[in-house]
Amino acid sequence: MTPRIALDAMSGDHGVSVIIPAAINVLKEIEDVHLLLVGDEAVLEKAIGQQPPSILQRLSIVHASQVVAMDEIPSSTLRNKKDSSMRVAINLVKEGRADACVSAGNTGALMAMARYVLKTLPGIDRPAIIAALPTTQGYPVHVLDLGANVDSTPEHLFEFAVMGSVLTSAVGNLTNPRVGLLNIGQEEIKGNEKVKEAARLLSESNIINYIGFVEGDDIFKGTVDVVVCDGFVGNVSLKTTEGVAKMISHYVKQSFNKNLFTRLVGLIALPVLRKLREKIDPRRYNGASLLGLRGIVVKSHGSADVFSFGCAIKEAVVEVRKNVPAQISSQLAELLSERRHVG
Amino acid sequence: MTPRIALDAMSGDHGVSVIIPAAINVLKEIEDVHLLLVGDEAVLEKAIGQQPPSILQRLSIVHASQVVAMDEIPSSTLRNKKDSSMRVAINLVKEGRADACVSAGNTGALMAMARYVLKTLPGIDRPAIIAALPTTQGYPVHVLDLGANVDSTPEHLFEFAVMGSVLTSAVGNLTNPRVGLLNIGQEEIKGNEKVKEAARLLSESNIINYIGFVEGDDIFKGTVDVVVCDGFVGNVSLKTTEGVAKMISHYVKQSFNKNLFTRLVGLIALPVLRKLREKIDPRRYNGASLLGLRGIVVKSHGSADVFSFGCAIKEAVVEVRKNVPAQISSQLAELLSERRHVG
Repeated sequence: MTPRIALDAMSGDHGVSVIIPAAINVLKEIEDVHLLLVGDEAVLEKAIGQQPPSILQRLSIVHASQVVAMDEIPSSTLRNKKDSSMRVAINLVKEGRADACVSAGNTGALMAMARYVLKTLPGIDRPAIIAALPTTQGYPVHVLDLGANVDSTPEHLFEFAVMGSVLTSAVGNLTNPRVGLLNIGQEEIKGNEKVKEAARLLSESNIINYIGFVEGDDIFKGTVDVVVCDGFVGNVSLKTTEGVAKMISHYVKQSFNKNLFTRLVGLIALPVLRKLREKIDPRRYNGASLLGLRGIVVKSHGSADVFSFGCAIKEAVVEVRKNVPAQISSQLAELLSERRHVG
Repeated sequence: MTPRIALDAMSGDHGVSVIIPAAINVLKEIEDVHLLLVGDEAVLEKAIGQQPPSILQRLSIVHASQVVAMDEIPSSTLRNKKDSSMRVAINLVKEGRADACVSAGNTGALMAMARYVLKTLPGIDRPAIIAALPTTQGYPVHVLDLGANVDSTPEHLFEFAVMGSVLTSAVGNLTNPRVGLLNIGQEEIKGNEKVKEAARLLSESNIINYIGFVEGDDIFKGTVDVVVCDGFVGNVSLKTTEGVAKMISHYVKQSFNKNLFTRLVGLIALPVLRKLREKIDPRRYNGASLLGLRGIVVKSHGSADVFSFGCAIKEAVVEVRKNVPAQISSQLAELLSERRHVG
């Protein structure tokens, strides 16, 4: 079955000017995919322009008259943006006309709409946001929750561990991903009551490969595959990562721009630095997934460029092929029977 | 008055082998300082070796028979390590024989002992840990709490803002440091109830220069001088910063080590990269302060080298000269009268 991905084509910092070229690139790169562009029909027609039939036959337009603004309050978008490109893209998943949707829009609104329209999977109380980050080992690490929840209970953290474990094994082809709980020390006595209780729940499960507490610097060491934390903590950690990387990049540019000599050195070092940048390029890691819903929703960074938005579309394609929501459901059912067995 | 700094000379990953050379370097660099080395007398005598009288006359040894291990449980060190180098160094501050102490030992034990021996300042419920981080603007940003507290109330966050504001203006010679609350969005509706209530408390004060919510990536932009957060969040953010910096450094080394060509390029780029490293060298930022106590306690990174431990000693010297605890007390008194005025 060809994955059908609905794209919220109007949202994000750059809208159609980034999303349409990204969509066309993905169609050129992957033969077995169909994209549904959601937004103002006239605008989309114009942005698509002249394309070969091999592209056009795998590209549909679905009209939506509104756009959700980046700073709009989620609850108000639920009431007032029922014909927005974001909402219609989610509706297509609900109606079974698309297998997943991708949006670069307002995260809060996307989560609110997806939750309202698609509903959560049975056994999931709180959906979570998960994304991949680079490690020194070359393979990525997945971190959740990145901001959907601000006061997670130990049970929520346990749910995140289940969902994160399923997604990571599906998209990374890992059989038994190592799951760590983010804490402020590795000793059992450290941390707050929530993480201690979540650690107890995770230790008791035979299904989750729980390896214990990890700290902020462990995220990037490649010693853990899934890092579980409350959304407040995860969001701060993600944004901190972005901030540090930008600061270092700023100083690298400044250092090589200082005078004629350093500019020459910079020119010589350019190919090496470019290769380096590729390895930890945040654009490669674009495409956070909203997990725990009855459908696949991928959130692109608002400022994504063409390459980067393409990565988010491909993330959605992989999740469709692996049928992540069904896998989460079956893992949850297994856990439930594990608990019954224990109880 | 010459600042007298007690050094816990036995703790940290490297003990005397780093701490004694660091102490001697500081005495050479700063004429107006007296250091009290606390630890096993015979070990310290040997480590000091031959030194000119100009050094020896500003160096005393205070014997302590025990050492706190890096993984010891804080509460047990309170009972069982009463003659440890850490405890005796803190006692010297309490007894008025030293104006500050510095330790590279177990953070939890240091906080527990310092709190037990020195007590908190009037009006301070929870001491906090603060440290400086680099920004793209060249000047540092101070972040607190970095792990002393795991479930801070809005009132605690308010206390942290007061203490952070005082320390930052004292050591950074700033008149009105910009204080931001770490959150997962800048809009007022974002975040958990704790930060929302803390924001309300801070907005009402005329003494704190509160600029609103900041996000993880704002820490490094130079747009805020003091970042206030719960200790769990702050610790994760600090460790994340370390982890990202190490990962990037790992990939930089790997890129330049790939083959003969890249190694040559690396050699040419070396002076530029070294200058760059200096700017964001974490060793320069070594020396976290335990704030809110009736005395000055500085925590060095456990793995600090000679240069880095020297920075922590100098942090203590500056805090003594600026009399940070007295300044916090007077700022708190002013706030109290401000509240009475309002009420």
